[in-house]
Amino acid sequence: MIQPAPITETGDYGNAFPASHRVHVDGPMGIRVPMREIHLSGGEPPLRVYDTAGPREVDVRHGLPRLREEWIRARGNVTEVGRHELPALAKNLRHGDAEMPASLSHVVLKGSGPVTQMHYARRGEVTPEMEFVALREGMDPDFVRSEIARGRAILPANINHPELEPMIIGRGFKVKINANIGNSAVTSSIEEEVEKLRWATLWGGDTVMDLSTGKNIHQTRQWILRNSPVPIGTVPIYQALEKVGGAPEELTWEVYRDTLIEQAEQGVDYFTVHAGVLLRYVPMTANRMTGIVSRGGAIIAKWCLAHHQESFLYTHFRDICEIMAAYDVSFSLGDGLRPGSIKDANDEAQFAELKTQGELTRIAWEHDVQVMNEGPGHVPMHLIRENMEKQLAWCDEAPFYTLGPLTTDVAPGYDHITSAIGAAQIGWYGTAMLCYVTPKEHLGLPNKDDVKAGVITYRIAAHAADLAKGHPRAQEWDDAISKARFEFRWEDQFNLALDPVTAKEFHDETLPAEGAKVAHFCSMCGPKFCSMKITQDVREYAASHGLETTDVIEEGLREKADEFRERGGEIYLEGTIA
Amino acid sequence: MIQPAPITETGDYGNAFPASHRVHVDGPMGIRVPMREIHLSGGEPPLRVYDTAGPREVDVRHGLPRLREEWIRARGNVTEVGRHELPALAKNLRHGDAEMPASLSHVVLKGSGPVTQMHYARRGEVTPEMEFVALREGMDPDFVRSEIARGRAILPANINHPELEPMIIGRGFKVKINANIGNSAVTSSIEEEVEKLRWATLWGGDTVMDLSTGKNIHQTRQWILRNSPVPIGTVPIYQALEKVGGAPEELTWEVYRDTLIEQAEQGVDYFTVHAGVLLRYVPMTANRMTGIVSRGGAIIAKWCLAHHQESFLYTHFRDICEIMAAYDVSFSLGDGLRPGSIKDANDEAQFAELKTQGELTRIAWEHDVQVMNEGPGHVPMHLIRENMEKQLAWCDEAPFYTLGPLTTDVAPGYDHITSAIGAAQIGWYGTAMLCYVTPKEHLGLPNKDDVKAGVITYRIAAHAADLAKGHPRAQEWDDAISKARFEFRWEDQFNLALDPVTAKEFHDETLPAEGAKVAHFCSMCGPKFCSMKITQDVREYAASHGLETTDVIEEGLREKADEFRERGGEIYLEGTIA
Repeated sequence: MIQPAPITETGDYGNAFPASHRVHVDGPMGIRVPMREIHLSGGEPPLRVYDTAGPREVDVRHGLPRLREEWIRARGNVTEVGRHELPALAKNLRHGDAEMPASLSHVVLKGSGPVTQMHYARRGEVTPEMEFVALREGMDPDFVRSEIARGRAILPANINHPELEPMIIGRGFKVKINANIGNSAVTSSIEEEVEKLRWATLWGGDTVMDLSTGKNIHQTRQWILRNSPVPIGTVPIYQALEKVGGAPEELTWEVYRDTLIEQAEQGVDYFTVHAGVLLRYVPMTANRMTGIVSRGGAIIAKWCLAHHQESFLYTHFRDICEIMAAYDVSFSLGDGLRPGSIKDANDEAQFAELKTQGELTRIAWEHDVQVMNEGPGHVPMHLIRENMEKQLAWCDEAPFYTLGPLTTDVAPGYDHITSAIGAAQIGWYGTAMLCYVTPKEHLGLPNKDDVKAGVITYRIAAHAADLAKGHPRAQEWDDAISKARFEFRWEDQFNLALDPVTAKEFHDETLPAEGAKVAHFCSMCGPKFCSMKITQDVREYAASHGLETTDVIEEGLREKADEFRERGGEIYLEGTIA
Repeated sequence: MIQPAPITETGDYGNAFPASHRVHVDGPMGIRVPMREIHLSGGEPPLRVYDTAGPREVDVRHGLPRLREEWIRARGNVTEVGRHELPALAKNLRHGDAEMPASLSHVVLKGSGPVTQMHYARRGEVTPEMEFVALREGMDPDFVRSEIARGRAILPANINHPELEPMIIGRGFKVKINANIGNSAVTSSIEEEVEKLRWATLWGGDTVMDLSTGKNIHQTRQWILRNSPVPIGTVPIYQALEKVGGAPEELTWEVYRDTLIEQAEQGVDYFTVHAGVLLRYVPMTANRMTGIVSRGGAIIAKWCLAHHQESFLYTHFRDICEIMAAYDVSFSLGDGLRPGSIKDANDEAQFAELKTQGELTRIAWEHDVQVMNEGPGHVPMHLIRENMEKQLAWCDEAPFYTLGPLTTDVAPGYDHITSAIGAAQIGWYGTAMLCYVTPKEHLGLPNKDDVKAGVITYRIAAHAADLAKGHPRAQEWDDAISKARFEFRWEDQFNLALDPVTAKEFHDETLPAEGAKVAHFCSMCGPKFCSMKITQDVREYAASHGLETTDVIEEGLREKADEFRERGGEIYLEGTIA
């Protein structure tokens, strides 16, 4: 009998996941954590999986519900410092540009002192955000708190981004992925960027970075923040550079500081700050194959050379910390000197900066500011592990956040794949968040299809890493889909896939008939050659002839499973360099 | 100035690689090894890369030139045993099926004794095939010979497949990839399969397996062999099963033996033989998540159970060796009990069979028959290395040939990616050939687009492995494309890509203007934010201010490079478990 898949969600969510619906897991303090529940047939229990999509049926001109607002105000220690206003520059909209509706404006909060999750964690306080994360990850709330207090994990959550559904980045948790969006001077509009945000979180983006460099940077960001259920990261130096007309040497601490405050007031959850690019490191890049490939790194390098002194990011680092502490913006310490080619991987410039990132990490922690460290880039497989080992050692186990790494340079057009190979490995070694790379890397700006390809590819890399690390919830998903596959529950197999509709379409291409969805064979082998069908006979045989053997094996497997869980748990909590 | 790319090849080759042309490297014995030469601008020397495409401008009804015919006959020890004829079954073509033109028929040769490359290698003889491979890989001919003699590499080359351009599979050489094609009872025609063969070798397939199970198995194979410049592998049990009406228990040694001879006479270069599936291993699969997922493994398991004895593959293994020695067909010892899910990876059944593969490898070597071992399958990252280590130890370093492995089960529709992650790793650890997985895996038969996606993805995995192993010719390709990227030689960057046209199309999507192909910035950042442009300033600065520093660094880099080459060379030749 054909069981029609229950269509329980509408809109893009329902289209993407036809047999899933949103459920909420209730916790203390009125916390409700969204999960995606996948319905299965054949009497199988539904499978609940982590969900990043956020509320979908929302008018983007009004933004998402302000989930955390009460939690933030209840902690006290915050004051209203005014209402969000468009800066003068941003008001000069050309006719046809997206205007910003008043409904997307908000009251701006600021802490009287540090209001960071690290601050509360160190005081022994489990915040609602930590409770939320604990439920979401299936972890003990005090483990969440202690990892944040120790600096081994961050919970990026600006007090001006109450729409956020809290998530955590740390190697004791599920590996996360980031999707980059953002317009440039050359192309793309605000509407497109908001749509990319919704699209990226639909498919599983855990955070989104808005890397806009074109016009309307401020409004684009406001639209994005008010509609984002995930943390938003930015690179403030991009906007600062726009303010000084695009000449790096014209940048000043004051312009940069004002930009930080402007973005912190809007609600940005983490800032990439390339404070580790020191003057003396710049000449180390002179003989590289590809010099400096980080935009921010190049801007700072040029400033350092022009002024022949250390950058204001480095000299004013403690001032930056104070600003970020007052809004709970987390650091993503940039790797401005990351390698841009296989040839340049793991060189002196890269590792010199990494050591400075460690120094800066410890300073930020003095201010209760949360920190993660950015990592490369382009690295051949045999040099990947060294990156993780040095980062853990030099940066005191702060979460690592890498761009891929790409394991070869020869496949532009396929760099989601060249980099997923590296990303899966470094995720297994302990990297907490993987920044996606799309098929357009090195060639152009990603469109919606590219964003989806990047997100799905990185969900694969992150999940493969979770499996290898022994994350308690990772294996159950693989087991559910493999069981469905083996039992010829085709619709279940599709629905358990990261991308159900694509899986089903691919099956339809070869065997479109509805009957094929319940057939006990498939198009690859046809009915006579089906190994799974033959296996049924093997099982019958085992049942009738080999019971003793089977029992022995079964017991052995059970023991092994227990052993694995014990060992897996240990590996998982104690360290992930395996 | 815009330099138009020189169009030097026509047809699909020219369309795929617009700025490449075919060159031949001349060696002793009149050997001419094809390479693809990529033209570059800006005074850069052209780059020569390995080429699997074979002669393209050939009428598929006549087949390829018979390159090796003279070499084979010159060695003597072969006799003509008749002319290829269609078996009775194959003559019953239905109207509309592709008929086989007489021009695709051939004189069948058979050795009076062993005529294998291993046989000659052990006698100290460097064959023209070995010379060809040495030129192709940039290796010493006697190294090629000694690796084959030792069993660490195979040169699959049936004496009835003279169209073959010789290639080698071994961990001391470039990592190879295999593309599976083949029709099934459900779908696909001969023409489609020949077109897939040409398509797979165009993009870089090093060998092709014809896994046909439907009608016209014999003719499909004849069309494929006569048009294939790469070794063709098959799983003869599939055709044997067709001959007995699809019931595994009806299979006999005699039917199987005749099928082996039929295919050996046609020119198949390697046979997958699941001789390691022993009766006592079958019950070990009873408690698996996904039982037996290898078609051949399932057929043999069912036969073993039905007859309650070891299969004729195992009991007649020496007879099989004698047949294969007389045509130089290589073994690909099948892994019939490979895991079909993450849950089943590295279990008792899988490793029991692997140990038997080792036993069989040594028997085949007694008969001078070349052997590689097939490996999994579905394996999470932390369990991959154990597969390589056990295979090297138990199978005396015979080449390993793995299917992926897939590192998670949750992404049907994207299994080229889930598996490329595992394939790159196991290639780095020492696997000699990677069997591709296409996006259609688990869902349907691959079409042309899927074949291309599979081949390109696996070229990426194999190249990433070559880089990590330190293959002398791998890095130069990455360096060439990175230099082009850094110097804004856009057309060169496209032409150096594994898939030039896709790379260029992606660039055109965002910045279609021809001028953008020479612009010193790109669509990702726009002109003001271009890190590479800023790096030029850094270099100028270094040149004018930091000469001393730069010199010191330069010298340091040079030392490191020498050190790497020494270390890399050692790693590369002495062992690849890093």
